[in-house]
This record gives sequence, structure tokens and C-alpha cells, in this order.
Amino acid sequence: MPALDVAGEFETIERLLRPLAHPEWGRGLADDVAVLPSRPGYDLVLTKDAIVEGVHFLPDDPLDTVAKKLLRVNLSDLAAKGAEPFGYLMACCWSERCGWPEREAFAAGLAEDQARFGVFLIGGDTVKTPGPAVFSLTALGWVPEGETVSRGGAQVGDLVFVTGTIGDGLLGLRAARGELSLAPERLEALITHYRTPAPQLDFAKVVRELATAAADVSDGLAADVAHIAKASGAGVELNLAVLPLSAAAQAWLDNRVDAQAALSILAAGGDDYQIVFTAHPRHEETLRREAERRFTRLTKIGAVTDGAGVTVRYGGRVVPMKQGGWTHD
Amino acid sequence: MPALDVAGEFETIERLLRPLAHPEWGRGLADDVAVLPSRPGYDLVLTKDAIVEGVHFLPDDPLDTVAKKLLRVNLSDLAAKGAEPFGYLMACCWSERCGWPEREAFAAGLAEDQARFGVFLIGGDTVKTPGPAVFSLTALGWVPEGETVSRGGAQVGDLVFVTGTIGDGLLGLRAARGELSLAPERLEALITHYRTPAPQLDFAKVVRELATAAADVSDGLAADVAHIAKASGAGVELNLAVLPLSAAAQAWLDNRVDAQAALSILAAGGDDYQIVFTAHPRHEETLRREAERRFTRLTKIGAVTDGAGVTVRYGGRVVPMKQGGWTHD
Repeated sequence: MPALDVAGEFETIERLLRPLAHPEWGRGLADDVAVLPSRPGYDLVLTKDAIVEGVHFLPDDPLDTVAKKLLRVNLSDLAAKGAEPFGYLMACCWSERCGWPEREAFAAGLAEDQARFGVFLIGGDTVKTPGPAVFSLTALGWVPEGETVSRGGAQVGDLVFVTGTIGDGLLGLRAARGELSLAPERLEALITHYRTPAPQLDFAKVVRELATAAADVSDGLAADVAHIAKASGAGVELNLAVLPLSAAAQAWLDNRVDAQAALSILAAGGDDYQIVFTAHPRHEETLRREAERRFTRLTKIGAVTDGAGVTVRYGGRVVPMKQGGWTHD
Repeated sequence: MPALDVAGEFETIERLLRPLAHPEWGRGLADDVAVLPSRPGYDLVLTKDAIVEGVHFLPDDPLDTVAKKLLRVNLSDLAAKGAEPFGYLMACCWSERCGWPEREAFAAGLAEDQARFGVFLIGGDTVKTPGPAVFSLTALGWVPEGETVSRGGAQVGDLVFVTGTIGDGLLGLRAARGELSLAPERLEALITHYRTPAPQLDFAKVVRELATAAADVSDGLAADVAHIAKASGAGVELNLAVLPLSAAAQAWLDNRVDAQAALSILAAGGDDYQIVFTAHPRHEETLRREAERRFTRLTKIGAVTDGAGVTVRYGGRVVPMKQGGWTHD
């Protein structure tokens, strides 16, 4: 479809995006479509997230990190479903700050992450927008037939686990906005996490084999656990006292007067891109061993119960939580 | 991922988008991902186009037509490849003018077109943007294994055909901007075409079986034919004198002093969403019969030749054309 400056978009495709394309399925980005052969015995898992300048990333975030964040937030959805990603389609709506050097940085960021995660570009669209930049990505992965992990399989008595650490996304955003006072290396670590979260793809296979339900932590731990509880028709109890924290988040927490309130903020924060999942207690040992083999931090943060919704406790007391994305109070 | 107003997006998913979801593959839009079973013997064809308010649609276009245009420009890509569409993922970045009634209209437009074209929503994302609205859609279709029509198969001696009429997209944009003086019913017809183009899905099967190369007419007829010529390593001669026009476009042409210049503008215009394709001359009869059966206008507009690029003629003379999206002069 005609854009404001088609020649610039043509150059972008020819020189920056084509080198990222899957040699066969992407058809050299020269054919309007991607063509995927069927893979009998496997289901195709698809997810699509858009990120908007000023909403999901900051107007002064470097474009290579914006590209990586775009790809990673989508790969995180696939990891939480037990899928193995292989490709993506992408629509770039470039804002005025996206000149040629910025587009080169964007493509370089994608190239690095393609190598890291084993995925290829297979198609998409590139246009200009007079407003803030918007990038949309559709990520594709394979799962052996029928093995996609849903949100809805948690059973009463299951344990709740989360990979990695919680709260770095929110604190990273605040650090990037200059709102935190911490040692420079702490701020740096948080900002890096905010800009380039690390999806837990190494752990996807473990989740696929052992989890009864799973979600990625994007809306906020409490909200994402609430999604699992609702879809499973069960309740979940979370223990705020064991929330896994990075060294930087711990340093931030150490400066708070009210630890309970501070942990509640982190549990509601979002942008963590970890996997939260439920599993039968008999798998706890195996889960710990598999996590150790992969150098993945794994924390038992709660249990599935009768009832409904999420109950958050701290030192035995029930903590009132605004449950983020899905309630209306 | 957290948005400016997550509750509004939650309502949008629950009340407006969930009713559009494929009952199985979309997982009730409650699971971050879509899951497609494999279909042995078929290739999956994917395409992704984004549309930006103020660039690809006008800020006062009704939202139901915006939704239809979004879906149709993507379905048009599938039709030109011979694919049968069945589903789509969509990312909505709502601007401030997109309140609840506008979102309802958007969903109603999609519901109508889902019924018309036999497709379902299977996943996506909904967020707010402080800038112009951006909508991105990934459309999915099936093609029997190995039968996807490319741009690159045109042979010297093939004929060039186009479905429908050319120029209504460009004239419709001008009409919507109030730049044309024509009878009200002509203006209305052109605006309708601009807002809700009609992808030639009925003709996809014919293209798949008989075309050697095909593209949808989105960048402009001359530019899209140039894509075919380049990918096929051949030249194409187009006859501007036989450009198929709607009654409204003909009325516009009748008021021009220089018919050749006017037709050149239409051939460069874009936003037509017809299929331009090449086929061996022995199929001409069959193509005409298949087109008639489907009430599809089909016009022979040229031939594939030795050489390179597109040569446009009018009454025997060569017409200088700026070839739109892909040249740099």
C-alpha cells in the first residue's frame, strides 16, 4: 500500500530487512507473503504483541534495544506455552526520529537476537507514521501436537513456580525515567532488564512437560497468576515474602520503610517476561534439577487452592492487592 | 504488557473481540497465543500489513470501514497468491478518537467481513496510543502444498491480465478529501471503493491454477507489474488504452483534456486491491469463462516480453511512467 515515502521503505526492505529473512519461507521478502510448509505432528503457535513509543518503550530508548524488546516480549509468550520459536512477521511504523542510522540499529538488534534465539524474519510491512513509532510482531513457534500449555489446567494442590526475578521491569522503567536513586551499576542493570528482557526459552521444554498451566509475566505477577486462577476455575495463594528479587531490586527494597507495600508494588508491576506456572508437587524435585541444569532461577511462590482469585500473603497476613489488568475496582 | 488503561483494553477483548474469535484455535482470546493444528498437504500462507491513521486511512473515516479495509488489504495479498484465507491475528493501537462507540463500530465491521469472507480472529493485542491510530493484521490462508503463486514465474509470451477496475482507490482518496467534482453518486462509489476495497477472493483459485505469476495491485498497477517483471527476469508491455475503468473513473476521465496523462495517473495510483497476473495465451479462453462464471471483470492489459522493466504504451506511443514504489529516479 502506498506510503509517505515509498523509496525509503523500499531501501529499508532491500538493505536492512532482507538479510534477516528466512532463505526459503520468507521468499526474500519479495512476495507479499510468507509460505510455511506443514509440519505433521506439530501444532503452530502464534502470538502478536504491538509496542508503542511512549507507552511500551521510551522515546529515547536506543532502537537496537527497541527491536530486541519487540521480539523478546513475543518470544516470552511462546516460551510460556512450551513452544519452540522459529520465525516472525513484523510491521514497522517508523516515527520521524527513525532515520537511516536508527533503522540500521534496529536491524542490527534484530540480527543479534535472531542468532541468539534461532529465529528468522519471514514477512511483514514497513511504513512511516506522523505519530509515535509503533512496532507489531507476530511470532511463530512449534509445539508437539496437543502439548501447548494453557492457562486453564491448574489443579487444587499444585504448586506455583516462577522463573527468574520479579520487579526488574517496573524498577527498570523508573530507573530509565531517572526516578530511582541507587548505585549506578544497579540502575544500569535495571534499565538493561527493562529495555532487553530475557525470555525464558531454555525453560519452555520443561514447562511443556511438567506444568499444568502457565503464563508469561507481562501484565504483572499477581494479574498473570489471576489469569491462571480464573481460567483454571481455582484459587491461588501467593507468598510475597519469597518473591525472587535481583540484587538491584533487593537494594531498592532495602531502602523502603514498608517492605510489604514495596513487594506488592513489584508483584503488580509487570514487564518481567518470566514464566509463572503450576505443577504437581511430585515434580518439584525434577523441576529444581532441570532449572539448575539450565542456570535458571526457580522459586516456589505459592499453591493452587479451592476457591477463586489470588490471595497474597506476607508473614501470614493477607495483603490487599489491586490485581492489575483484569479487575475493575 | 501494561497499557495506559488496561481495564478499557480488557473490556474491548471481553465484549468486542471475543465474539469474533475462532472457537478452538483462538482459545477464547484468553491464552496469549493461538494454536493451529497442522494441515498435511497444505502450505500456510501468511501476510501482514499495517494501516496508519492519516496515511492509509483518513482521520474521519468511520471505524467500521477502517476495520474492513484493514482486513481486506491483507486478504487481497492472500487472494493474489491463490490462498484461501481462514483466520487472522490483529493488533489495535487505538487513538484518542477511538472511544467505546468507535470500537463497537470497528468490531461490527469485522463481524460483517468475517461472515462475508469466512475468516475468524485467532489472536492479537489491543493497546492505546497517544498518536494516530495504527492497526496491524496478520492474515492466514491455506494453499495446496507447493501451489502458492509467486511474482517470479512469468514467461516471455505470457499475457497480462487484471481483475476488476483500476484507479478507483486513488480517485476515492481524492473524493474523500473533497478534491473531485463529479456527480454525488460517482463520488459516493469512489469513496466506498477507497474505504472498503473488494479483494478478489473468488478468483484466487483460478489464479492458483492458471497464473504463472501474480501480485495484488496495492502500490499501483505499473509498480506491481514491475515487481512481477523484475522477479521473473522479463519485461512487460502494458497497454494504457485498455485500462479497465469503473463508471465513476470513466466520468472523471471524460473531463480530462489529456487522456494519456490521466490514465498514467490511475495506473500509478495504487490502493486498487485487484489481482494482476500473467498466464500462457492458451488459457485465455478458460480465464474468460471462469471470470464470467464469477461475475469478475477480467481485462487483458499486456504481454510479457524479452528485456526488463515495464513499458507502457498508449495508441502505439511509449508513455513515460514514474514506476512508483521501487525506482529511485
